[in-house]
Amino acid sequence: MSKFNLPIAVTLGDPAGIGPEITLRAWRDRDEHGLAPFAVIGDPALFQALAAQSGTAAPIATIETIEDAVTAFARGLPVLPLANPVQAVAGRPDKANAAAIIESIETAVALARAGRASCVATNPIAKHVLYEAGFKHPGHTEFLAALAAEPGTEPPLSVMMLWSESLAVVPVTVHIPLAEVPKALTTELVVATARIVAADLRTRFGIAEPRLALAGLNPHAGESGAMGREDIEIVAPAVAQLRSEGIDASGPYPADTMFHARARAGYDVALCMYHDQALIPIKTIAFDDGVNVTLGLPFIRVSPDHGTAFDIAGKGIARPDSLIAALKLGARLATHAS
Amino acid sequence: MSKFNLPIAVTLGDPAGIGPEITLRAWRDRDEHGLAPFAVIGDPALFQALAAQSGTAAPIATIETIEDAVTAFARGLPVLPLANPVQAVAGRPDKANAAAIIESIETAVALARAGRASCVATNPIAKHVLYEAGFKHPGHTEFLAALAAEPGTEPPLSVMMLWSESLAVVPVTVHIPLAEVPKALTTELVVATARIVAADLRTRFGIAEPRLALAGLNPHAGESGAMGREDIEIVAPAVAQLRSEGIDASGPYPADTMFHARARAGYDVALCMYHDQALIPIKTIAFDDGVNVTLGLPFIRVSPDHGTAFDIAGKGIARPDSLIAALKLGARLATHAS
Repeated sequence: MSKFNLPIAVTLGDPAGIGPEITLRAWRDRDEHGLAPFAVIGDPALFQALAAQSGTAAPIATIETIEDAVTAFARGLPVLPLANPVQAVAGRPDKANAAAIIESIETAVALARAGRASCVATNPIAKHVLYEAGFKHPGHTEFLAALAAEPGTEPPLSVMMLWSESLAVVPVTVHIPLAEVPKALTTELVVATARIVAADLRTRFGIAEPRLALAGLNPHAGESGAMGREDIEIVAPAVAQLRSEGIDASGPYPADTMFHARARAGYDVALCMYHDQALIPIKTIAFDDGVNVTLGLPFIRVSPDHGTAFDIAGKGIARPDSLIAALKLGARLATHAS
Repeated sequence: MSKFNLPIAVTLGDPAGIGPEITLRAWRDRDEHGLAPFAVIGDPALFQALAAQSGTAAPIATIETIEDAVTAFARGLPVLPLANPVQAVAGRPDKANAAAIIESIETAVALARAGRASCVATNPIAKHVLYEAGFKHPGHTEFLAALAAEPGTEPPLSVMMLWSESLAVVPVTVHIPLAEVPKALTTELVVATARIVAADLRTRFGIAEPRLALAGLNPHAGESGAMGREDIEIVAPAVAQLRSEGIDASGPYPADTMFHARARAGYDVALCMYHDQALIPIKTIAFDDGVNVTLGLPFIRVSPDHGTAFDIAGKGIARPDSLIAALKLGARLATHAS
């Protein structure tokens, strides 16, 4: 079976969140969006109950191996059962589900690493639920990186990219207070991040010479040092280093003028120095269909660009757009991956 | 003469920048955009030469008083001459023009304050040119605030708002390094800024109950303190204070999810905690037609949302869109002003 028709392994995510219902809806809308076959690693009874209750006309196809998903996909949502039990009440997260949530992620990664799934698409999890059950990782992405490490070795540096048809952004620093950003930002971190981005844009996105635009940290990229020295002392040397390695990096640019349509045409990805600098522009123009892609892992991982949304779970109003965009991108990246 | 048909006083800006040519183009396109009469306080010879050289079919109407602009506007670009000389070479700023640049601003403000112009529309200046000539103010807006002060009193707190048809934003801190933002941000500053915004949205924009949405400083607005305490300790108390004063303020909201179309429908203006948080979203969606409006002054001041652009001055490629948007907004605000 070639990469082109391997199924995508979709994780359960938190079963009390919107993951199960958007997965069901993505299957329902599979033809409209031309989705490649996927299977969710989850609990068939949960999906059967959800389909019945929500009125979604989605029969469930319980499968025994991930390979069965390809043929089963036409007749129902393929579900590969878990060993751990799931007791989900929409909107009410329960640490009793932690083992099943983690098993689903581990299974999906194992299938992708074994070449039996084309990629991993993860549904949203709530870290606090897993922490209560003894989960030790700072987040979803770090857990995936740990699963990617050979036993006894450090996990690889993983990089979060937010991707949409019109803009791709990478925050160099992510979930830290704004006050800590200037201290956390180093030339080494910018360079290490950019190398992973450039490599994955080549091998996975099929862009031969990816163009990386780096945002300045300060207003107007510091205006020659008048408003902060970091752009001169940290970002500019990173650009120079990357260029010396043959990577088409440029900047630092004033961040406010980087994201309008004409400016976006000049690069393939914007490297931003902190969370909101990256996420404000992409969520402003692609709120519903942004995809979270993890770069730097030995397998492809995509994810919808939203959380568990416990507040609307089970109400039948959650939009599957971002998961659908993730499934489309995952299939596309799998065709390029070596 | 009522406010409804007073002319707008347009300043010269730096004559080596794109100000003169976009002013000429705005006059040329006056009917297409339904522009109210305006006059530029400048040098008639400069505008005559520019019109001849650029091939712009714009006769110049030298006027003796601002009031003449209303009737002169149909036959040419009204220019009210300066006492100080102007020797402009496009793209080559010269401190010899500083006196004329400043005279133009002072004259425009005096006309607006005297009730002889409906508002002031300022063309871009380059601070470093004026500094060389002894100018003492941190920027254009601060100079205008100083002109608004009664002799011997402190200038009023002025507030920069970037406005477009689809989004209005106010940065609470502006031109400072990112590392200084957390220290500069205080509940008092947020409250003082928001009061001015709310008052001017009422009196100038005619919004009876303006809705102010406040962005959080940190990613996810700090996620209940997990990523920084400022949103709990500085921004939230500001929201509470404003609400106790009867101002419809809300937040702090995660900044990345505030600016997509559905979210924007929920407020009239977004108060952002720093420069790029405010300017990224508006320049992403309204790059060409954003307007800079100064709130808190005893007169209306609008400005295009770009700089002098010395690099493209005199080449006939500068877009007048933002100045045209500023002139339209200035005229609209003047109809509401008491």
